[in-house]
Amino acid sequence: MTTVLFTFSVKDQLIEQLQTEFQEVKFTFSTMKDLDALRKAEIIVTYGEDISKETLDQAPALKWLMVASAGLEKMPLAEIGERNIFMTNVKGIHKIPMAESVMAHLLALKRSVPWIYSQQEKNEWSKRSGSSELFGSTAIVIGPGAIGSEIGRLLQAFGVQTIGCNRSGNHGPYMNAMIDFGQLSATLPIADVIISVLPSTHETRGLLTYDHFVSMKEQAIFMNFGRGDLIKEESLVKAMKERQIAYAVLDVFEIEPLDENHPFWNMEGVIVSPHVSSHSSEYVPRALEIFTHNMHQWVNEGTSFQNVIDVEKGY
Amino acid sequence: MTTVLFTFSVKDQLIEQLQTEFQEVKFTFSTMKDLDALRKAEIIVTYGEDISKETLDQAPALKWLMVASAGLEKMPLAEIGERNIFMTNVKGIHKIPMAESVMAHLLALKRSVPWIYSQQEKNEWSKRSGSSELFGSTAIVIGPGAIGSEIGRLLQAFGVQTIGCNRSGNHGPYMNAMIDFGQLSATLPIADVIISVLPSTHETRGLLTYDHFVSMKEQAIFMNFGRGDLIKEESLVKAMKERQIAYAVLDVFEIEPLDENHPFWNMEGVIVSPHVSSHSSEYVPRALEIFTHNMHQWVNEGTSFQNVIDVEKGY
Repeated sequence: MTTVLFTFSVKDQLIEQLQTEFQEVKFTFSTMKDLDALRKAEIIVTYGEDISKETLDQAPALKWLMVASAGLEKMPLAEIGERNIFMTNVKGIHKIPMAESVMAHLLALKRSVPWIYSQQEKNEWSKRSGSSELFGSTAIVIGPGAIGSEIGRLLQAFGVQTIGCNRSGNHGPYMNAMIDFGQLSATLPIADVIISVLPSTHETRGLLTYDHFVSMKEQAIFMNFGRGDLIKEESLVKAMKERQIAYAVLDVFEIEPLDENHPFWNMEGVIVSPHVSSHSSEYVPRALEIFTHNMHQWVNEGTSFQNVIDVEKGY
Repeated sequence: MTTVLFTFSVKDQLIEQLQTEFQEVKFTFSTMKDLDALRKAEIIVTYGEDISKETLDQAPALKWLMVASAGLEKMPLAEIGERNIFMTNVKGIHKIPMAESVMAHLLALKRSVPWIYSQQEKNEWSKRSGSSELFGSTAIVIGPGAIGSEIGRLLQAFGVQTIGCNRSGNHGPYMNAMIDFGQLSATLPIADVIISVLPSTHETRGLLTYDHFVSMKEQAIFMNFGRGDLIKEESLVKAMKERQIAYAVLDVFEIEPLDENHPFWNMEGVIVSPHVSSHSSEYVPRALEIFTHNMHQWVNEGTSFQNVIDVEKGY
């Protein structure tokens, strides 16, 4: 009998659906500390943060690892590769909530939402909103992949010119123009909004520097929804202290959770979002849709799996 | 020489543009209290709140009244009609900022922006955002005219099903379905978002009642960006006290400014926006574009004016 260990909790209703759909499969909902379940598990479904070399050693029966998140940079990929463990993830399910979060923060700043909330806290009626518009802006989307191009699609609906920026400068969907990493410095002065959704790789770590922020418009909004190591935090702190740009909206940080004494918390123009931009009530249902599809392939020995990871490449 | 009185302030750069473009026209930037300017003015450009029967009596030369706002319900339309004063407004220039404000508030609530801001105030890292998504929602847009259909267009870009609601039930742009006012009660139970951008007319005053809020989903978001007399405020207070719905985002009120002791200010689930949803740094430049177009028609005795008001109909 195929045994599946889920290391995150799932609502009863969704569990029932799984058990009805796969009557020949034994599902266990527990944690990696459940050594008996771990030992027997042929399939593990996890958010990924509980996977280490040690965990794998305790899971000799493991053949398929489904990671219900996007970032794989902390995975013991070498050992997974050696053991030839089949690996899938949920790439793509972040794009809707993340793009909505980007648009929420961006529109909030343009349309004075923080000011409106703070006026309400004071019971104070004032019409000095100082609102501007997103319409007619120019945005650079650094990393126009699945998430970045969904952001591009929405930006274009708001009348924003989109410039995609990636390693090659090759076409990205919903981008009016494309540039490569080398052209970034020269392009920043025309951008009103700069959004990064880059993963952490050896090419993206430290890609942005203090000088890039000096090149940006004073009214620019920078949004980091990718990974915190895109820029050295001390450089960003310096740039924001000097008000080189108007706003930095940060969902990711060098060290998470962000220390309660970190200067970002109380810095003018900095919005701290505690790495929640992909959160959604629809997250687990969508992850289970992908799992269900792949599970049917698994039990019927099919081959059309979704979101298979190339363990060597790491994506 | 044609004389134009502006009763609101305009940036120097825009004044220079006007004077360069219309060298034969005398522009005065003052107020309605400037009786000399008022007496001589052939054209008055105003936000409208300073126009009364008395003002008109003091403006015997007035032939064209350009109102740089949308609502005309407080204008002395009878006297304007009697005197056969030509009247234009800026209908349409609100649609971009207003639609952006609606989307800003809506996405902010779906993506936990108020919670993120309040966590930041406490330097508190937590991942319990409870975020949901706009994607897949159903929205009723009450009043799918220029502004309402721009909202519909953006909602559809976010994967929202749009239901337009007007007097006739006739087609509205960017609406997946249409209903008339009589079908509203029966349709409210399926809506996640209900947005009104209705003007104030004898058909819209009191259109919504307490019972409508009882029909709405518990998780519904109601947004009033039209006029405050759409619903008796005491009914809305009652509905919100009972948490018939999750959120009411209000940009308009029965009496503005909202009294500092009004229950709305501190009520759970109520967002008070001080009638600023149409505000934009682009407002005056856009209004002057329309004025400049019409002024060319005026001085050259052309006929293709934009945004001419039918004074009898009031729009």
